[in-house]
Amino acid sequence: MHPYRTHTCGAPRDTDAGQIVRLSGWINRKRDHGQLMFIDLRDHYGMTQCVIDSSSPLFPVAEGLRLESVVTVTGKVVRRTPETTNEKLPTGRIEVQIQELVVQSAAEQLPLQVNSDADAGEEVRLRYRFLDLRREKMQQNILLRSQVIASVRRRMIEQGFNEFQTPILTASSPEGARDFLVPSRMHPGKFYALPQAPQQFKQLLMMAGYDRYFQIAPCFRDEDSRADRSPGEFYQLDFEMSFVTQEDVFAAIEPVLHGIFDEFGGFRRPVKPELTPFPFPRIPYAESMLKYGNDKPDLRNPLVITDVTAVFERDDVEFKAFKSVIAKGGVVRAIRAPNVGDKPRSFFDKLNDWARGLGAPGLGYILFEAAGGKGPIAKFVPEAAQAALRETVGLNEGDAVFFVCDQPAPAAKLAGLARTKIADDLDIVEKNAFRFCWIVDFPMYERDEETGKIDFSHNPFSMPQGGLDALENQDPLTINAYQYDIVCNGIELSSGAIRNHLPEVMYKAFSIAGYPPEELEARFGGMLSAMKLGAPPHGGSAPGIDRIVMLLADEPNIREVIVFPLNQRAEDLLMQAPAPVPSERLKELSIKLDLPKPKVAAPAPGAVPPTPEDTVSPKGA
Amino acid sequence: MHPYRTHTCGAPRDTDAGQIVRLSGWINRKRDHGQLMFIDLRDHYGMTQCVIDSSSPLFPVAEGLRLESVVTVTGKVVRRTPETTNEKLPTGRIEVQIQELVVQSAAEQLPLQVNSDADAGEEVRLRYRFLDLRREKMQQNILLRSQVIASVRRRMIEQGFNEFQTPILTASSPEGARDFLVPSRMHPGKFYALPQAPQQFKQLLMMAGYDRYFQIAPCFRDEDSRADRSPGEFYQLDFEMSFVTQEDVFAAIEPVLHGIFDEFGGFRRPVKPELTPFPFPRIPYAESMLKYGNDKPDLRNPLVITDVTAVFERDDVEFKAFKSVIAKGGVVRAIRAPNVGDKPRSFFDKLNDWARGLGAPGLGYILFEAAGGKGPIAKFVPEAAQAALRETVGLNEGDAVFFVCDQPAPAAKLAGLARTKIADDLDIVEKNAFRFCWIVDFPMYERDEETGKIDFSHNPFSMPQGGLDALENQDPLTINAYQYDIVCNGIELSSGAIRNHLPEVMYKAFSIAGYPPEELEARFGGMLSAMKLGAPPHGGSAPGIDRIVMLLADEPNIREVIVFPLNQRAEDLLMQAPAPVPSERLKELSIKLDLPKPKVAAPAPGAVPPTPEDTVSPKGA
Repeated sequence: MHPYRTHTCGAPRDTDAGQIVRLSGWINRKRDHGQLMFIDLRDHYGMTQCVIDSSSPLFPVAEGLRLESVVTVTGKVVRRTPETTNEKLPTGRIEVQIQELVVQSAAEQLPLQVNSDADAGEEVRLRYRFLDLRREKMQQNILLRSQVIASVRRRMIEQGFNEFQTPILTASSPEGARDFLVPSRMHPGKFYALPQAPQQFKQLLMMAGYDRYFQIAPCFRDEDSRADRSPGEFYQLDFEMSFVTQEDVFAAIEPVLHGIFDEFGGFRRPVKPELTPFPFPRIPYAESMLKYGNDKPDLRNPLVITDVTAVFERDDVEFKAFKSVIAKGGVVRAIRAPNVGDKPRSFFDKLNDWARGLGAPGLGYILFEAAGGKGPIAKFVPEAAQAALRETVGLNEGDAVFFVCDQPAPAAKLAGLARTKIADDLDIVEKNAFRFCWIVDFPMYERDEETGKIDFSHNPFSMPQGGLDALENQDPLTINAYQYDIVCNGIELSSGAIRNHLPEVMYKAFSIAGYPPEELEARFGGMLSAMKLGAPPHGGSAPGIDRIVMLLADEPNIREVIVFPLNQRAEDLLMQAPAPVPSERLKELSIKLDLPKPKVAAPAPGAVPPTPEDTVSPKGA
Repeated sequence: MHPYRTHTCGAPRDTDAGQIVRLSGWINRKRDHGQLMFIDLRDHYGMTQCVIDSSSPLFPVAEGLRLESVVTVTGKVVRRTPETTNEKLPTGRIEVQIQELVVQSAAEQLPLQVNSDADAGEEVRLRYRFLDLRREKMQQNILLRSQVIASVRRRMIEQGFNEFQTPILTASSPEGARDFLVPSRMHPGKFYALPQAPQQFKQLLMMAGYDRYFQIAPCFRDEDSRADRSPGEFYQLDFEMSFVTQEDVFAAIEPVLHGIFDEFGGFRRPVKPELTPFPFPRIPYAESMLKYGNDKPDLRNPLVITDVTAVFERDDVEFKAFKSVIAKGGVVRAIRAPNVGDKPRSFFDKLNDWARGLGAPGLGYILFEAAGGKGPIAKFVPEAAQAALRETVGLNEGDAVFFVCDQPAPAAKLAGLARTKIADDLDIVEKNAFRFCWIVDFPMYERDEETGKIDFSHNPFSMPQGGLDALENQDPLTINAYQYDIVCNGIELSSGAIRNHLPEVMYKAFSIAGYPPEELEARFGGMLSAMKLGAPPHGGSAPGIDRIVMLLADEPNIREVIVFPLNQRAEDLLMQAPAPVPSERLKELSIKLDLPKPKVAAPAPGAVPPTPEDTVSPKGA
């Protein structure tokens, strides 16, 4: 008989009754019934109830064992009586009568309970991560992550992609965030950088002729923590393809994303969520800003913002508050609130208060009843204009319409927030769905509000729509890039782009953003050299693995889907990292400490300021 | 029609004749036949011959293009005449008559030829890696690597393993080599280390209950370069299992390794190599040292070393040179040289010279002819003793036997080298085979020759055979560990072990090696804490991916199987890493440069001293 197990703890069935089996696992729970003690023995695969009689010489051993001790039990499988059968457990029709009991590892007092979901606090959980991971929820979350990644790999390979490992010790990347640096021992005074993304390497792989690359790629950014981004490292499904249009990229990755959300959408959910069929909607950036007020719309929300500036420009409308803003280039945006005819006045007032809390003058509205428009603004909008409104916004009897009037950018933003707020208040957001879309046609450039300077909006390596001709002859602020985001439920999973593979377009694109050729060559010399020696048109994207798993596991905190995460202060409490280093080691690396003056106390754990937004657009993909 | 391609360059067939196709790729070769120009258009999938008539207005464009330019051609597929058919090429029965030609990327003068295997020198190859990778051999090597890793993953998952990503920003590891360090911005004066191997994390995963873990794990060692180890990073198939014996570990990984070598063994070889069937031979360390003279035997070599000390101890043998060494604890080891009766005297003399070149007094030998033993030693060994030799070593008529006499360790070493030399000289090493074995029962401790101190031989986390009892009651130098290596063709693919999961055994094992409990707790506090809170018996190994691919691709240099390797001086010539960093960045990291005095010139590229051995045992697995 195997010294540790003939079966896993999830395996014995009533068809095994009468057999002698051996199981090894952790003591999940003990129940002492006087004459009998029940031990729930748990391993990765399941749980089996084991039972020992108080007359057994092993009883005192079992009695003395703390929960989470590891034991090997040998005994006979017996059927439980119908009253004691547990149909919820695959092994629930049997129990094992302990004949031998070997203690493999006696547990000391536990710092957190493994067999309960009681919150133990993040510090304790991370310091004893090996215990935390034994808890059912964490065990499942991390396994989900592993299975999602395995499925992604399988699906990418089925789509003809090959996985290549790009370097981790490399040069500083152009992603915009802070690099982690690694001092070189062999080259005093020089440093490697950990990659913020394998952006340049995947483009070089296309230039090397590999056609379809992917990688579950570790990426590193020395950023402060937030809920959806672990400090330090994260993983993305990095991919790139040659000889493709934007639509080819979408067509390659949509089946993979759809497949993953279809395969794992039911994780811990009673009903499998609805899923956007592919092809996913493509929404131009400008349209998204208008209709949803942002570039990562949550399409579970059925509401859509409409521009109704034209209505308020009508001569028969006399609402001066709006007219004066419109006269200065402002716009009026409308959000429908469906079926609110029976809502109390407080519903409308609270929305007004909410908007004022955000610094807006309030949310004007009109409620359309059988008798006509009602509400503070209605009297300024005559019947004909109201009809135009109903037509434009698509309003029915019993609907209200809320208005935001401001310059286009702040109007879009507030309208977007109001769209979310109204749908939440009305509880009309789809509860159990994954709604995908592509945002396309991002502007290539933007004007820096402060300096007035023109800079890249997103990834400087993207191909401008219209190519060199557009760069030479068009107002840069009107040029779109072949740059796109994939969004699910209002969360940006990734940016991506068709890349610029033409050196002359590259030089021109950078010069518009104020970078002379020398700077381009100094920073991206390798890439430029590759672009001059036969580069295919290519493009790709890099959906975030951690975010995908967070969505599937319905976890708001990224640390719930990473096996050994750093804490918010970027510390590994279990392994004690980061740690001081002997000065000889630093000498060998030709560096020494240059500590800040100790006048300012170090921030306390948890004192990292929260950030208002939960996602950011990583520059580059 | 798709803007870039309707078919890949490997796709068109004679069944497509008459169709208009569009292909995109690199100009691999051009042949100007006056009236016609042939362009071999190449992409990742293959090559298609395209042809253009000198009367075409596109002819001058085609003429002006350099090799490796990227073009899109559109044209009609036509059957080649029987005389011009190329049956070696899947597309060799057709060609494409160019009707449209779009230049996607015009190549400048090439620094290395892509369509030839001519050596371009490592510096140029790495600086223009994207070109180097387009060459057929490199394109295939890297694709092999990708396919091997995908297959390893599939096979591991089929064996019930789950892949988890362990942290890359972590604490210093106990692997014995130098860590790469990463200064922490948030914790001035502290550093992360990049993992030399995920050793502790995989053990913690077992303690977290995950049962079967694997990872294609990036590992980092700040070591000097050698042929089989890239400076910087390398990958291993890291795996670990709970509730297993050593044999369970072997049984889990043997089908994976065998499967990989079976699946890919035929890569670039005309005949698929012979493969050791599994279970692979298990050879105790002591036996390996005796029979092969080392702990990584090349079993393609049929020769086996025999101890013949007893023969030379006989009273009737009067060979004083050996007897005096034996009297001081020495041994005599014999290597058979089969069927050398017809070899000239120079064969034996050369072997003698070779041994003297290694500092040995020479290789004594006896050649067994029909008339009896011959050679310089034969006269000291009477008939009866010769018969004993023939019996012990298994010698036939026409065989010779060579002797090494020294203290056991140097005798084993020289005998091992002689075994290789003799088999090479006789050309009796299997040419086309992968021969695997496990080396088991490694000693737990060894005595440091210089200090006399007892230290761990290999991984300090291995379980000593006999457990606590052996540690308490046995001479440490006689204790073996559940520690094993997997060897293929004389190359160590990996160390591995059944781990020590018992804190009391851990404390004792470390105390024997001179480490007090405080030091153990300071260095491995997290692991110890996990061992005290319910740790399962577990073990694993970590075969090197790069070495496996080197064996399969039959490449002696690891840089031939890594897509973007650092050079021997740990530089990325393409991306310019490592590089200087602005002092503000260093300030942010609370470090400053501490450069060595510039009196010593930096070593020139390639000046890294060669190392005598091609593989080392990485401590830990």
